[in-house]
Amino acid sequence: MNFITIMGLVAAACTTASFIPQAIKTINTKDTSGISLAMYSLFAFGTMMWLVYGIFSSNIPISLANGITLIFASIILYYKIKYK
Amino acid sequence: MNFITIMGLVAAACTTASFIPQAIKTINTKDTSGISLAMYSLFAFGTMMWLVYGIFSSNIPISLANGITLIFASIILYYKIKYK
Repeated sequence: MNFITIMGLVAAACTTASFIPQAIKTINTKDTSGISLAMYSLFAFGTMMWLVYGIFSSNIPISLANGITLIFASIILYYKIKYK
Repeated sequence: MNFITIMGLVAAACTTASFIPQAIKTINTKDTSGISLAMYSLFAFGTMMWLVYGIFSSNIPISLANGITLIFASIILYYKIKYK
């Protein structure tokens, strides 16, 4: 595995994992006033498209990273709709 | 351009554009209490890694999408640090 591939994996791990602290914070505080509904609607839809794209193009890293991100983005979106 | 490629472009456009309404909301309201500092720190770093990965692997869509996302994620991170 070369340096560029490792950099891509680090990048994917960071952007995917970054939604975990936001989901935890939102679940614990239910403070969603500063969170944009438009952002999470568009982001969850986009992540779902990435997941479908990854599945259709048999790209496991894209499918996996976006499948995990979609779970956390959906949790945040659910809380935003419930506690707006 | 086939259907799978178009789906990937739609996905990229959605996840990139999604940060624009969040940045606008954060700039206008300065309400960052519900926004996770850990998320935006990790996300901005990850997006920067994606950008470097895109440049090193000569991948224009990855470079472009992450370059744009990095701008908006950085604005949100800046407001989160300034108005915490």
